[in-house]
Amino acid sequence: MYQIRTDLALETQEKMQEDHVRLKGVRFFEERVDQNLTISTVTIETENGAKIMGRPKGTYITIEASEMDEEDDGYHREISIELAKVIRKLLPVKKEELSVLIVGLGNREVTPDALGPRVVDNLLITRHIINEYGKYAFGKNEVNRISSIVPGVMAQTGMESVEILHGIIKETKPELVVAIDALAARSTKRLNRTIQVTDTGINPGSGVGNHRHGLNEKSLGVPVISIGVPTVVDAATIVNDMMYNLVDAMLKSGAFKELGDSLDKLNDGEKYELIQELLTPNLNTMFVTPKDIDESVKRLSFTVSEGLNIAFADMNCELS
Amino acid sequence: MYQIRTDLALETQEKMQEDHVRLKGVRFFEERVDQNLTISTVTIETENGAKIMGRPKGTYITIEASEMDEEDDGYHREISIELAKVIRKLLPVKKEELSVLIVGLGNREVTPDALGPRVVDNLLITRHIINEYGKYAFGKNEVNRISSIVPGVMAQTGMESVEILHGIIKETKPELVVAIDALAARSTKRLNRTIQVTDTGINPGSGVGNHRHGLNEKSLGVPVISIGVPTVVDAATIVNDMMYNLVDAMLKSGAFKELGDSLDKLNDGEKYELIQELLTPNLNTMFVTPKDIDESVKRLSFTVSEGLNIAFADMNCELS
Amino acid sequence: MYQIRTDLALETQEKMQEDHVRLKGVRFFEERVDQNLTISTVTIETENGAKIMGRPKGTYITIEASEMDEEDDGYHREISIELAKVIRKLLPVKKEELSVLIVGLGNREVTPDALGPRVVDNLLITRHIINEYGKYAFGKNEVNRISSIVPGVMAQTGMESVEILHGIIKETKPELVVAIDALAARSTKRLNRTIQVTDTGINPGSGVGNHRHGLNEKSLGVPVISIGVPTVVDAATIVNDMMYNLVDAMLKSGAFKELGDSLDKLNDGEKYELIQELLTPNLNTMFVTPKDIDESVKRLSFTVSEGLNIAFADMNCELS
Amino acid sequence: MYQIRTDLALETQEKMQEDHVRLKGVRFFEERVDQNLTISTVTIETENGAKIMGRPKGTYITIEASEMDEEDDGYHREISIELAKVIRKLLPVKKEELSVLIVGLGNREVTPDALGPRVVDNLLITRHIINEYGKYAFGKNEVNRISSIVPGVMAQTGMESVEILHGIIKETKPELVVAIDALAARSTKRLNRTIQVTDTGINPGSGVGNHRHGLNEKSLGVPVISIGVPTVVDAATIVNDMMYNLVDAMLKSGAFKELGDSLDKLNDGEKYELIQELLTPNLNTMFVTPKDIDESVKRLSFTVSEGLNIAFADMNCELS
Repeated sequence: MYQIRTDLALETQEKMQEDHVRLKGVRFFEERVDQNLTISTVTIETENGAKIMGRPKGTYITIEASEMDEEDDGYHREISIELAKVIRKLLPVKKEELSVLIVGLGNREVTPDALGPRVVDNLLITRHIINEYGKYAFGKNEVNRISSIVPGVMAQTGMESVEILHGIIKETKPELVVAIDALAARSTKRLNRTIQVTDTGINPGSGVGNHRHGLNEKSLGVPVISIGVPTVVDAATIVNDMMYNLVDAMLKSGAFKELGDSLDKLNDGEKYELIQELLTPNLNTMFVTPKDIDESVKRLSFTVSEGLNIAFADMNCELS
Repeated sequence: MYQIRTDLALETQEKMQEDHVRLKGVRFFEERVDQNLTISTVTIETENGAKIMGRPKGTYITIEASEMDEEDDGYHREISIELAKVIRKLLPVKKEELSVLIVGLGNREVTPDALGPRVVDNLLITRHIINEYGKYAFGKNEVNRISSIVPGVMAQTGMESVEILHGIIKETKPELVVAIDALAARSTKRLNRTIQVTDTGINPGSGVGNHRHGLNEKSLGVPVISIGVPTVVDAATIVNDMMYNLVDAMLKSGAFKELGDSLDKLNDGEKYELIQELLTPNLNTMFVTPKDIDESVKRLSFTVSEGLNIAFADMNCELS
Repeated sequence: MYQIRTDLALETQEKMQEDHVRLKGVRFFEERVDQNLTISTVTIETENGAKIMGRPKGTYITIEASEMDEEDDGYHREISIELAKVIRKLLPVKKEELSVLIVGLGNREVTPDALGPRVVDNLLITRHIINEYGKYAFGKNEVNRISSIVPGVMAQTGMESVEILHGIIKETKPELVVAIDALAARSTKRLNRTIQVTDTGINPGSGVGNHRHGLNEKSLGVPVISIGVPTVVDAATIVNDMMYNLVDAMLKSGAFKELGDSLDKLNDGEKYELIQELLTPNLNTMFVTPKDIDESVKRLSFTVSEGLNIAFADMNCELS
Repeated sequence: MYQIRTDLALETQEKMQEDHVRLKGVRFFEERVDQNLTISTVTIETENGAKIMGRPKGTYITIEASEMDEEDDGYHREISIELAKVIRKLLPVKKEELSVLIVGLGNREVTPDALGPRVVDNLLITRHIINEYGKYAFGKNEVNRISSIVPGVMAQTGMESVEILHGIIKETKPELVVAIDALAARSTKRLNRTIQVTDTGINPGSGVGNHRHGLNEKSLGVPVISIGVPTVVDAATIVNDMMYNLVDAMLKSGAFKELGDSLDKLNDGEKYELIQELLTPNLNTMFVTPKDIDESVKRLSFTVSEGLNIAFADMNCELS
């Protein structure tokens, strides 16, 4: 089967349903928080489920809000609060104090890939203050020890992110890593309106920049929560989707019904062959992105960093 | 007929040829400067030619260089020199001294639309020095009087570019305007590898930002040369091209020959209807752009501004 | 008398008082809004007062808030509201609708001079929407027609700001210009903590970039309100102040009393001579600026643009 | 004795000479490469010399070029070549292949402190290519393995640079670290015109950002070459210098001779006391920087990165 690229587990789940694939070992749950905000949870429970879904076992929570991308004085604080709740839900340990390294993945110089670095720019960092003055500098008995790093991309550093992070983690010993990354979606309508939070870390091949290695408990030695926002669709995905839309459009339309039937009868191999013909080599280095992506990434990075700031501010404090 | 959007006269001319449209009143000439550099000239000579080509009468010169987008220590000075020659060829008057206002169109905050503002950042500006110290400050008898402006986009200024420029031109009285702009192409393979120079100014609807009004001798009162580099393809264009590629692929392939024949027999109206079905409203606010667009725009803006600097440096001096 | 450079009328007034100069024709009034926020008004009423103060007749209102430069979630909305009130107080006409051109002076590429361009980046612009859809697009009977421009600096454009603005004003006919600019202060303790609003426009020689020409009703043909925030102290000013502090310190200290007396007895001409000895040519191209100026300018530009947005949002609405 | 702050060993040496301090254990050598380019070498040979000079034993080479700060098409390639030669001279081992980690210290968001991060942006990075394709990808038998990192500043990361680097070095095992940093000088005339290269690493307290910990062979486990360019003068330094200039000016001038004599007779303790009176707390958070620092840092970072690129390109190749 031709695999459509998406970094969102939710989109893979939707595609499976569309194609009537039976999803054994995968649970799905959707909660409508209000008219504009939906939270979906995909839980991959078995190795078999992981194989079908093309991603590791674990929990994938998606916050969708149609207004996320719109301008807002408070940078959508209501979404930040929901994000904070989701982060807390996925914490591997329930402690009153955590030592957390927040990692801004991606390339600061490529706008749709700059989400991670920009989120890190706006975090409340506490580790150095606690180290210097003790946590009583904050007037509280429990303070999370937050540090952060922007490792850069391999073309700039000559090192894998996993090498850089592994070294820093061995040296500074955080109990948890939270990795922020810009993602690729399948559907343009999800761009800049969706936040995915998972407890499985970063998958190889995922992200706008296609990470070569996974960043997860196995490779880093500590649990990894990842937070991603889709900012691009691969140009090749658009072309592939088009092919399927074309058949659909033909089947529905009277005039092209017959034509559609013929196309629909092609088997997956034949469809794949057709699509390959349409994919010029050029398209593989292209992506589709909204015209206002620069503004969107700026705004979204505030929403996400505020979610992290709220989640780790005071863990005795209930979020409501 | 469904009109594909491109800001390159060369692509419109190619499409016409492909569709076997007879181009009366349009002349075409191609010169291969070397293996990597081709200069094509489309001259629209009659009103009828203008109607078919969907753009005003005048000369459209396109510099294509496959290496333009690659890193280069000298920012491709050889291309800058060709650009300078083309600019000189299109000068409306042959004088030893000119007063020129160079205009950087587009939105500095949107990477693929930032070409114009960035070109202006690197120009050699002389008008204020001549006004203050006389042209003898340059040790020459003839010096071009160069000024520049970045008018911004309407959403930022609340004013049309044509209003801003009209006011400035009445006040500072340049003899020529050169407008720099980022363009939309039809083909991804032309992105960041092509420079179009015309003596017709800026067309309404052209540019990454879709200018609402023309900037030309009629609206500004002085001749306008425009220089454009395509940095995006409209997402809708990709979908449209796909449709045609699909038919082609089917016709060529044995297995889908029959299917392709049926599609090919659709008339233009039917094809247009099909395409409309495929265009989701979302796609209209998207564009396709290379992954390294930030770096490309930075580099290209050096190449173009150096072309302008050379063209206007000393017009007694032959370029070779 | 050796003239200390400051763009703040308040500092000139203070210096005059310190030097026991009688300020005929100048009124001064100070209001303490709360513990952290003081509003001072210097009114220059006569030509003689203007001569002594070295600036034109008119009203100079200064908002000082020690916390202005500190981080704040709402970018100090309380200061923005005070700024809005001051702007409204200085409006030349009381109308329910105004057509306003807001001008961001300064150089976007030089951090302490980038305040003007950055303020303009965050304004609510309405003119183009009213022109296109009518003011009923805003669901109100009266809407101010806001436009904006960043003219750039002469080294970049080859044109004087006054030329650019004069042209645009003749073309788009605003009833009022509001010019935003970064200023030089005399005292480092005022940097990034002070906003000056005047109804006299921009003085020649003022600003971080030393404007060559005034921007005022006389040169532009419409009333000009100017809003400035001091972001630098000239290095030469620091040296001059030091000289006076040195004498003071000596006079107060027992050990150096005699020495201080001798210095204090020097007349102004002698003091000036001494200072000139200390001013190396280098210092004239230097300024003194806080280490966190990049962050400060970013934050302050939000505070100022929000002040403008509030002032012009709905003029029937009282600000409280 | 009141210690003037400078990160340049050359300036400390000059001050010592001025004050007629005998510099045992310190050698000094100056070479005039051409009219505009001077290379000075300060070698601190003994612990006693290190104590007097206030910096560790080792070699401090300073490249001074009055034109370094001026615009130049090739970003002063002639200076880059001299820098490359100096770097090669200080290499701890003479091998045909080296594995080097280049570190861009400082804060990308604070213009005069952004030199390190910006130098790293323009480096030729090879480590990942060699790891993936072998060094034969470069068509050479010996290729240096270059990697780089921008660790950020503690307020952003919550971690000391020494922690981050120690971790990365243990993981990726370079044989040499080269650290790039922006420095504070004593004299404004050295700003942006001087490059200091040392084999002693980074001293605690040095740099625009005042590093808390040393980065050297002891703390990092591998030899550290550091390259610095002064971009600021501490405001406090200007005030201190002023004090001395004042006395000098008075002594030379007939009119103030007597006064100068009295000041000159003050002992160092008394002078220090006077200066403290003049230093307002504000001044400690200020620095003096040239008005065009944004442009200067951009240009200088190209010159320095090109020096590194040349130094490590092909070590069999003689530089001339």
